[in-house]
Amino acid sequence: MRSVVVLGSTGSIGESTLAVADALPDAVRIVGLATRGKARMVIEQARRFGARVVAVEDSAAAREAERLAAPHGIEVWAGAEGVEALAALPEADTAVCALVGLAGLRPTLAAIEAGHDVALATKEVLVSAGELVMRRRAEKGVDLLPLDSEHSALFQCLQESGSEVACVRRESPVAPGVGGAEARIARLVLTASGGPFALLPEVDFARVTPEQALAHPRWKMGRKVTVDSATMMNKGLELLEARWLFDVPVGKIGVVVHPESIVHSLVTFVDGSTLAQLSVPDMRVPIQYAMTWPERMASAVPELDLARQGSLTFFEPDERRFPCLGLIREASRQGGTMPAALNAADEVAVEAFLGGAIAFDGIWRAVDKVMAAHEARPCDSFAAVFEVDAWARRMARQMCVR
Amino acid sequence: MRSVVVLGSTGSIGESTLAVADALPDAVRIVGLATRGKARMVIEQARRFGARVVAVEDSAAAREAERLAAPHGIEVWAGAEGVEALAALPEADTAVCALVGLAGLRPTLAAIEAGHDVALATKEVLVSAGELVMRRRAEKGVDLLPLDSEHSALFQCLQESGSEVACVRRESPVAPGVGGAEARIARLVLTASGGPFALLPEVDFARVTPEQALAHPRWKMGRKVTVDSATMMNKGLELLEARWLFDVPVGKIGVVVHPESIVHSLVTFVDGSTLAQLSVPDMRVPIQYAMTWPERMASAVPELDLARQGSLTFFEPDERRFPCLGLIREASRQGGTMPAALNAADEVAVEAFLGGAIAFDGIWRAVDKVMAAHEARPCDSFAAVFEVDAWARRMARQMCVR
Repeated sequence: MRSVVVLGSTGSIGESTLAVADALPDAVRIVGLATRGKARMVIEQARRFGARVVAVEDSAAAREAERLAAPHGIEVWAGAEGVEALAALPEADTAVCALVGLAGLRPTLAAIEAGHDVALATKEVLVSAGELVMRRRAEKGVDLLPLDSEHSALFQCLQESGSEVACVRRESPVAPGVGGAEARIARLVLTASGGPFALLPEVDFARVTPEQALAHPRWKMGRKVTVDSATMMNKGLELLEARWLFDVPVGKIGVVVHPESIVHSLVTFVDGSTLAQLSVPDMRVPIQYAMTWPERMASAVPELDLARQGSLTFFEPDERRFPCLGLIREASRQGGTMPAALNAADEVAVEAFLGGAIAFDGIWRAVDKVMAAHEARPCDSFAAVFEVDAWARRMARQMCVR
Repeated sequence: MRSVVVLGSTGSIGESTLAVADALPDAVRIVGLATRGKARMVIEQARRFGARVVAVEDSAAAREAERLAAPHGIEVWAGAEGVEALAALPEADTAVCALVGLAGLRPTLAAIEAGHDVALATKEVLVSAGELVMRRRAEKGVDLLPLDSEHSALFQCLQESGSEVACVRRESPVAPGVGGAEARIARLVLTASGGPFALLPEVDFARVTPEQALAHPRWKMGRKVTVDSATMMNKGLELLEARWLFDVPVGKIGVVVHPESIVHSLVTFVDGSTLAQLSVPDMRVPIQYAMTWPERMASAVPELDLARQGSLTFFEPDERRFPCLGLIREASRQGGTMPAALNAADEVAVEAFLGGAIAFDGIWRAVDKVMAAHEARPCDSFAAVFEVDAWARRMARQMCVR
C-alpha cells in the first residue's frame, strides 16, 4: 500500500493518477493533493479521495480553496511553500510529481529529503538537475520511479534478469554473475509519436498556429508537453531524463518515430536481443506500474490486440526539420549547467509561442540563442541550477518579445 | 562457464550452437557431440572444439566415425544408447537437445537424471511428455532452458520483476510481494511467420509440393520443422511447449501471424502492459541467451534497426485454412496421452509427405484420423508415452500408404 501525495493533481497526469488510485483502493491511498490554481477541482478531488490536506500555489485560488474546504475539515496550504511542504507530508511515503516545468524541482527535493519515493512525470527536473537529484536519491535510499510512458517502458524492460537500475534501490540482491545495467545495455531507443508534424511531407514552421501545435494525434496532454512534442523537444528532454534515470550515456540513446504510439520504448542488449514494452496508449499503464512495482495488478486497460492493430511503423526523425534533438545533444555534450539553460529557454519560448509572441520555429531559435549566450559551468549545487535557470529565463524573455 | 554436450550437432540448431561456443570460448566449452548419421562432419566438429567423445546413432555411420576418429583420440559411442550415454556425460553440466522429434525424449531424460541443465530445441519432447518432464526437472533441480526463438522470447520477457518461471530454479528469492507468473500473466502471444503459404490469398493444398513446403521465407531450418511451419502445426506444437515451460494454461496462449519474424513473441501482463522480445532473425540470439542466462554477453549479431525495418505487420491466423491449430487445442483439451498421439502422427505424416506418399493436406487429415482412433488416457509414465507413440506411428503409417 502506497500513501501518496499528488503534486499537480488537476492536470492530465494527476487525473490519471487518481483514476489508478480509484481502481486500486488496496494499493494506493491518496493523502494529499496540490494544484497550481484549480481550487474547486482540487477540493472536489480531496473530498472524493478523503485527502486531509491540499496545497494551492496561486494565492487567490488558495483563498477560494480555503472557503470551499472549510465545511469538510480539509486543510489548505498556500503558495509554492505549501506545495513543497505537501511533498514532504509525514503520513505520505510517495510523491507523484506531475507539476509543469522546473517548478517540480523543489517539491521533488522536499519529497526525497523526507525519505519519500518519487514517481516523476516532470521531466524538466532531471533535465536541469539530473546529476544532483540522482545523487541525493541514492544518498537518501529512495526510489525515483518513472511515470512517462517511454521511461516506464525502459524501466519495465530493464527489470529483466535482476540487473541493477540506477533510479531505484534493489529489493533483492543482484543475481550472481549478473552485471550492472551498463554492462548489459547496447542501446536505449525512445519512440516518438512525431506529434502533428513529423508525418507531413512539408510544413511551413513559420506559420504554424498554437491550435495546430496543440492538436496531438495520439495523446491528450498538458499544453507545454504537447508543444514540446510538436517541436520534438519533448523527445530530447526525455533523452536527457533517460540518461540520468538509467545511468546510460547519451551516445547510447536513440530516437525512432513510431506514429501509432503502441511500442513505448525499447532496450537493446549487448547480445543483440531487444526488449520492448507495448500497450494501448493509456497513461494509466505507466502510472499503475510505478504505484505497484515490482508487483503487477489487474487493471481495466484493454489488452493490446496486435492483429487488430495490423501494423506498426518506424522511421528516423528528420533532424534537419526538427533541430531540437541536435540542441539537446549539444547541451549534453557541453554538460554542466547547459541543459538547465536549454530547459529554461524552452519553457519561456513555448509560453511565448502559445501567447502569440513568437512563431513556432522561434522556439528553437530562442533556445539556440540562449545556449549560445551561456557559458556552461559545473552543475555542482541546486543553487547553481536555480541561478542559471533564472538567468536563462530573463535572456529568453528578452528574445521572445513580439 | 558451461560444459556442453550438443545432441544433434550436425543440424541447423547444432551448428548455430557451435557458432555461439566459438564466439564465447570463456562461457561455453564443448565436451561432446551427437549426430544421427553425419560421421565426417561430427568428427570435424569434435576436432575443432576439442570434444573427447562423439555419439553416432546410425550404426554404419558410427563405424565410419570410429575410423575417422581413431587418429585423433576421440571416442565414438554408437547407437541410440550412445546418444543417451552422451547426454549424461559426467564432465558436462548442460545438454543442448536439438534432435529431431520424440527421439529427443530419452536423451533429455538421461541428461536430467544426470543432474544436467537441458537447453531444449526439440519441442516434441514437451508436446508428448511435458507434464512428466517438467515434474522430473523440478525434482532434480535442473534448469530447462528454451532454445526456440519464440520460447526464448517469452522466457526473456518473463525474467522481468523476478517473478517465478516454471522451467528454471530460482537463483535468488522472489522479491517480496511478487507473485508467481500465473498471477501476473494475462496472455502469452506466440508470433508465427506463417511459413510460405499464410500470406498467399489462395493455395491448393492438395497440390503443394515438398519443394514449395520447404521454401521457408525467413528461417533456414531442418526439414521436419520447416514442413510443420508450412502447415502451422509447428506453432501448435510451440503452444503446447509454452504451456509446460511456463505453466500457463493453453487458453491463455494466443498466436499472431507476423511475417517479418522480428518480434519473436510477447507476454501481456494483467495490468495491460505487454513486453516483447525482438531481434533480427538469427538463432544465435536465443541459443546464446540460454548459454549465458541470467547474464548477457556481447555477440556479433547485428542490432535491430527498426527505422530501417520500416514496419512490422500482424494478423490473425486463418484456422479454417490451417486446421492444425484446432487439432492442437483439441488434443490439449482431451489431454493425457492425446498430444503424444498427435505428435507421433505428425512426425510420420510429414515424412510421408516429403517421401511423396501423401498430399500436403494429407498431413492434417492423417493427424485428425489418428486422434479420432485414439482414446486418451492419463499420461502417468514415460512407458505410457512410448507405448502411445509407437501405436500412433503404426496407425499413421497405415494411413499414409500411397
